[in-house]
Amino acid sequence: MKKSRLRVPGPTEVPEKVLNKMALPMINHRGEQFRNLFLKVSEEIKYVFQTNNDVLIFPSAGTGVMEAAIANFFSPGDHIVSFQCGVFGERFAEIAESYGAKVEAIKVDYGKPITKEIVKERISNDKNNKIKGILFTQNETSTGVLNNIKELREAIGNHPALVIVDAISSLGAVELKTDEWGIDVVVSSSQKAFMLPPGLGFISVSEKAWNAYENSKMPKYYFDIKNAKNSLKKGETPYTPFVSLIYALEESLKIIKDEGLENIIKEHKRLSKVLREGVKAIGLKLFVEDEYASPTVTAVEIPEERKDLQKFLKNKFNITVAGGQDRLKDKIIRIGHLGYVDFLDIIAVISALEMAVGDERLFGKGVKAAEKIYFEGGL
Amino acid sequence: MKKSRLRVPGPTEVPEKVLNKMALPMINHRGEQFRNLFLKVSEEIKYVFQTNNDVLIFPSAGTGVMEAAIANFFSPGDHIVSFQCGVFGERFAEIAESYGAKVEAIKVDYGKPITKEIVKERISNDKNNKIKGILFTQNETSTGVLNNIKELREAIGNHPALVIVDAISSLGAVELKTDEWGIDVVVSSSQKAFMLPPGLGFISVSEKAWNAYENSKMPKYYFDIKNAKNSLKKGETPYTPFVSLIYALEESLKIIKDEGLENIIKEHKRLSKVLREGVKAIGLKLFVEDEYASPTVTAVEIPEERKDLQKFLKNKFNITVAGGQDRLKDKIIRIGHLGYVDFLDIIAVISALEMAVGDERLFGKGVKAAEKIYFEGGL
Repeated sequence: MKKSRLRVPGPTEVPEKVLNKMALPMINHRGEQFRNLFLKVSEEIKYVFQTNNDVLIFPSAGTGVMEAAIANFFSPGDHIVSFQCGVFGERFAEIAESYGAKVEAIKVDYGKPITKEIVKERISNDKNNKIKGILFTQNETSTGVLNNIKELREAIGNHPALVIVDAISSLGAVELKTDEWGIDVVVSSSQKAFMLPPGLGFISVSEKAWNAYENSKMPKYYFDIKNAKNSLKKGETPYTPFVSLIYALEESLKIIKDEGLENIIKEHKRLSKVLREGVKAIGLKLFVEDEYASPTVTAVEIPEERKDLQKFLKNKFNITVAGGQDRLKDKIIRIGHLGYVDFLDIIAVISALEMAVGDERLFGKGVKAAEKIYFEGGL
Repeated sequence: MKKSRLRVPGPTEVPEKVLNKMALPMINHRGEQFRNLFLKVSEEIKYVFQTNNDVLIFPSAGTGVMEAAIANFFSPGDHIVSFQCGVFGERFAEIAESYGAKVEAIKVDYGKPITKEIVKERISNDKNNKIKGILFTQNETSTGVLNNIKELREAIGNHPALVIVDAISSLGAVELKTDEWGIDVVVSSSQKAFMLPPGLGFISVSEKAWNAYENSKMPKYYFDIKNAKNSLKKGETPYTPFVSLIYALEESLKIIKDEGLENIIKEHKRLSKVLREGVKAIGLKLFVEDEYASPTVTAVEIPEERKDLQKFLKNKFNITVAGGQDRLKDKIIRIGHLGYVDFLDIIAVISALEMAVGDERLFGKGVKAAEKIYFEGGL
């Protein structure tokens, strides 16, 4: 009997004390108890977003709040620039297109990040401020690339376009200073660094974005943020909230606050490095260079000698990792290490990879490299 | 945030699907549904005991059924020989003494097993069959020694004394053929290889033991096995049963049956060897020799340079191991690996021990040795 070890980049493992909250009995979602709870979590979640802006909580997958980030702020025909380095960047553009925006896609190769040069060049050429929105993906889960949002935002300068960041697989695990950096809209969801089951989408909205809302002509109903904000003033939601997940969110926000966001961010970086050094030491290839590697998901190239790597990890060790998407199918596996993951979880993955490589001379080598890095950081 | 890794030799970790059964609503313990359930588990548990004898289930700790194994079969003044190699052997004798038996303790040093020679010598000298009971501990949890019950039982031959085995920390993880070897009474409990929370005590009773019951004059009430057997005929218990744990027991028996007892026993042996080779490879000392090492708990000597080994594992990695008991206090730690434990759990312990030793030259060495053993056994 082998324990299930969920190492996909979301849904992530959920701490026991958070899971237990999911089992609490239902309460009236229009009653005093729920109102207080909902007001509390809606306020406390701002800490994770590093913002004083409104943060609205929807019962939805991450893609739902990506849609909210388009439909609430733009009108059909609006020019939106979408910077893409993988599947999730592409998805953001698809959503904008489906709502009638005029989307301009700027792509870099899978495995590479968007650079400030690319952004600067495009924005500085927009002399008449035709661009209304700029879409970034902070952490491109499909390749394991982290875009440097701080730099990219700086490259935009004073251009009046709304800056919108998909931080679904990064927020709470990677630095994202919404207010300090001047990000108008940030979206995230529950099943990643929030350590919750899937089901909640989060969206932060700056004052500038609220102004854009007033002029937006795209249709919206379920994801109407003004509707949500008006309800929130009374501690309510426009439609039935996901009560169990709101209980759980309260608990996970408490954990994040107690641990401290900075510590959590540091630990994600550290564990990412631990895994990467372990992978390198046994001769496996990382798909993304260290410099812009994601702290939450690591893509490892599938070696010729172990084509069945994903299945091997599942069948022999009950470790579930993700495969590659689209043109990366059968090329990489993606190992998630965000949220409720610790050093010894990483060691377990490396040990399983050592067995997958199956060369006795390499046994322990990955673990050694990993331990060295971790040890040097202080226990 | 580090995950809790419970590596004491019981209570052991409980699989999620077993834990979930603990959350089911209460039912009438005198109703049809409970009757069917209780009859079912009382029958199915015989597979783990490898017996056709009655097995009775009490709401109690393991010590409770140890008491049952004395009070039900003997009378004050009866001569009982207690073979002891650790704290739990001593406890069995204390119980017998407290009920007025004349207990003769035969001890070997902590860390050593009872040998067939010791048993043979004592039994063959009992020409007039004065000895009424013989007490063994299959797995001495306090030292990590496994007694070879098969050999010890053979050494007793045809002597008419009742042979009683405390298999609390071994049954379900270590071979114990109750009927084939001729063991009259076996006791065990829920929080070990049964992968359940604490709360249930189990006792198997041979025909010979039932005959002894009829002549027993020791007082008994709660642990009266005849009372329990009479109730069981109707699918009931004499006093209120631990309903939630009976739900959970049904699930754990299913898991054990599906995995197959033989496979489980093999895997415990294998993981014990994996851990021991890992420990040796980084220069730590095992308290017990390989030959009679327990497959469920491993005692590691605390090195001079890491006096705080138990605390270190707890504070740095949230791994909970047991300390030494009595005269072994501060001399050893005891690592439990019974029940719901897999290879990667062992790797995690070894990696943490490597960090505890803290010698970079040894990093990965223990894991390497462990992987080698495991790999050779086939993935």
